[in-house]
Amino acid sequence: MTTLDAPDLPTTAAAEPAPVDVAAQVEAVATRAKRAARRLATANRATKDAALHALADALVAATDRIVAANAEDLARGRASGMAAGLLDRLALDPQRIVAIADALRELATLPDPVGEVVRGSTLPNGLRLRQVRVPMGVVGMIYEARPNVTVDAAGLALKSGNAVILRGGSAAASSNAVIVDVLSEALEHQHLPGALVQSIDAWGREGAVALMRARGLVDVLVPRGGAELIRTVVRESTVPVIETGVGNVHVYVDESADLSVALPILLNAKTQRVGVCNAAETLLVHQAVADEFLPVAIAMLADAGVTVHGDAETLALAPDEADVVAATDEDWATEYLSLDLAVRVVEDLDEALEHIRTWSSGHTEAIITRDLASSERFVAEVDSAAVMVNASTRFTDGGQLGLGAEIGISTQKLHARGPMGLAELTTTKWIVHGDGHVRP
Amino acid sequence: MTTLDAPDLPTTAAAEPAPVDVAAQVEAVATRAKRAARRLATANRATKDAALHALADALVAATDRIVAANAEDLARGRASGMAAGLLDRLALDPQRIVAIADALRELATLPDPVGEVVRGSTLPNGLRLRQVRVPMGVVGMIYEARPNVTVDAAGLALKSGNAVILRGGSAAASSNAVIVDVLSEALEHQHLPGALVQSIDAWGREGAVALMRARGLVDVLVPRGGAELIRTVVRESTVPVIETGVGNVHVYVDESADLSVALPILLNAKTQRVGVCNAAETLLVHQAVADEFLPVAIAMLADAGVTVHGDAETLALAPDEADVVAATDEDWATEYLSLDLAVRVVEDLDEALEHIRTWSSGHTEAIITRDLASSERFVAEVDSAAVMVNASTRFTDGGQLGLGAEIGISTQKLHARGPMGLAELTTTKWIVHGDGHVRP
Repeated sequence: MTTLDAPDLPTTAAAEPAPVDVAAQVEAVATRAKRAARRLATANRATKDAALHALADALVAATDRIVAANAEDLARGRASGMAAGLLDRLALDPQRIVAIADALRELATLPDPVGEVVRGSTLPNGLRLRQVRVPMGVVGMIYEARPNVTVDAAGLALKSGNAVILRGGSAAASSNAVIVDVLSEALEHQHLPGALVQSIDAWGREGAVALMRARGLVDVLVPRGGAELIRTVVRESTVPVIETGVGNVHVYVDESADLSVALPILLNAKTQRVGVCNAAETLLVHQAVADEFLPVAIAMLADAGVTVHGDAETLALAPDEADVVAATDEDWATEYLSLDLAVRVVEDLDEALEHIRTWSSGHTEAIITRDLASSERFVAEVDSAAVMVNASTRFTDGGQLGLGAEIGISTQKLHARGPMGLAELTTTKWIVHGDGHVRP
Repeated sequence: MTTLDAPDLPTTAAAEPAPVDVAAQVEAVATRAKRAARRLATANRATKDAALHALADALVAATDRIVAANAEDLARGRASGMAAGLLDRLALDPQRIVAIADALRELATLPDPVGEVVRGSTLPNGLRLRQVRVPMGVVGMIYEARPNVTVDAAGLALKSGNAVILRGGSAAASSNAVIVDVLSEALEHQHLPGALVQSIDAWGREGAVALMRARGLVDVLVPRGGAELIRTVVRESTVPVIETGVGNVHVYVDESADLSVALPILLNAKTQRVGVCNAAETLLVHQAVADEFLPVAIAMLADAGVTVHGDAETLALAPDEADVVAATDEDWATEYLSLDLAVRVVEDLDEALEHIRTWSSGHTEAIITRDLASSERFVAEVDSAAVMVNASTRFTDGGQLGLGAEIGISTQKLHARGPMGLAELTTTKWIVHGDGHVRP
């Protein structure tokens, strides 16, 4: 999910070592990862689940080491003037470490995607076909300053049979180094390769670039963070990338909306959690209900601390002009990730759809309506990963949709769209059995 | 499928026009494609199938125009010394045009992937979920001098609800221009947007580069051709790419193989069609059966005109040394696409697996065996799109595997692996229905 973390990819890590052949070092890491992944590919679920429990236990046992390393990161962050919200995301304490470990144990309860037969048949010529889920191999993650992502990514990769190469934010470098160490050791105690979880943080930005160019050794790269980080990875990478997380999310209140349904959904979508990609950023209101809905909605949002950036009609309907500011095109384009909301009155459903087509990032949009035809048009014509009818946009989440843990929310159309869980970290293999079949 | 066509991407098309803002032109093409795709996305199967028949009829009706344009391409090809095999792939005559049109009619018989519910459920909180197949939107194709690919790509895109932007080889420019014209007109007669099928051949290499950079307008790019073309597209593209076609394909004859099964499979895999990605390029033979198998196999291959590039043990077993040449590492790496075969005697299954890990392009490998444990290890450990047991590698083909027509054979792990049919040209959308649901 998109976070408030400042993208730190373009800067060089403070602790970067003396000149070395970074590309060769990262290639060596990726080669070890590939070999390790080969061993894991044929491991059964029991082995992987036991390892997940062992990783969880090891993290909790290493609480003191992790907290001490995290204190270094926090001190560096404070010294460099890091914002309070970012410091909070970076901070680990014994309670948070227990929660992170519990997430690994939760992963052990999920079914193993590896081995699932996706389709299969016997052809008229007698060939027996199966298309079976197999691990990707080596997954690369490039992310920002949240050390919990280090553990989540390692756990999801392990459960889906993959090795992972991690490039975390330099702001969390000390925490991540200890965490990767602990996980890697715990894997070896389970007689699994420690190279299943490796970090390339030591090689700074150059290491990240080398990872993006390791096509053939790394099977997929998942950037997780702000828009700038994701753009950089997409531009630089020759390894296939799954784009995640940028959510310019819309809620459209239709002419026929039940306003007592619309208000709580709007409040939930905007304020239940602010710095996340499935939070609402723009409200579109059908003109026929604007007079009735907007004054109440604006007052409710103001009570919750939300600043409304409205078009002229919205401004005119605000009960207190202190609660609203005038919107520009930039507001329609912005993923605020803050207590701000762009609001526009639209003529009809067509204008709402046109606005969404123009400005949406293709993550999630919601319609509030009682009209069947409107809901069906909205569902058919909105080209986003998730479309909600009379429900909060905050439900676009692997956990909420019952997929289990997620590694991110894909906003691209290739391979994965929407929440990416374990199955999205696998590929397939065709297995064909014959009895001497040749092609005529 | 990989063809023998020479990659012509790095050269500039002869007919390139005077300086224009190519990026802006291609962006305009892609914007028209996107708008056209939006209209097609909600078209039902009957509409799309009727259009496929109309396209087929229009091509046959335009036979004279197409053949005349093709004659220009052939004349240019002969003048520039194009090889006979390439000229043959480029050539169109009335009979070939009928076959191309029939392939479109065949597409109309396949089920529509759009609208398929991939998974769905009702959550404990009452939210109703469906994950539904929807078209990608705009598909870009970059390919070489085979005008039939122009029609295939247009048909597959149409049936799967997508617009297509085509960049064909400059050697087929005249044929492609007429074909795209005919298809586009026929679509408009069917009250569908002509912009569903567009070519950017007029803008040469610059146009291809602009297409590769049209992220946000083009949803996926499929390069189809030789290794060099595919490498270029992977390196230059910011649009997500699906890599197709390079097949360094292995056949392994196990210790327990039924040699009367192994011989016809080997002959079929190597010689049934030579210039295709699923043809065998390397034979690995277990040492225990080499003495018995290789003399017969080499003689059989020699009769079929195949030159064996063998390791020392293979050379020693050749009944006539005129049929064999010494292999180097380059042979293990080569996709010959010709009547050549690299042959190596291996100590055991482990050495065969290690050879495949080192040299395979991950397309298709086959084992010939009677031993269950060997077949299971081979299937589990070979990391390729398709693994055959006692069957010819030539079966890795959308038509042969019952998927219907294919747009290429993916050798990457993301999104599609193996033959890519209609379903692989779609993505999915989550549709969530609630009754005022908010996230607690």
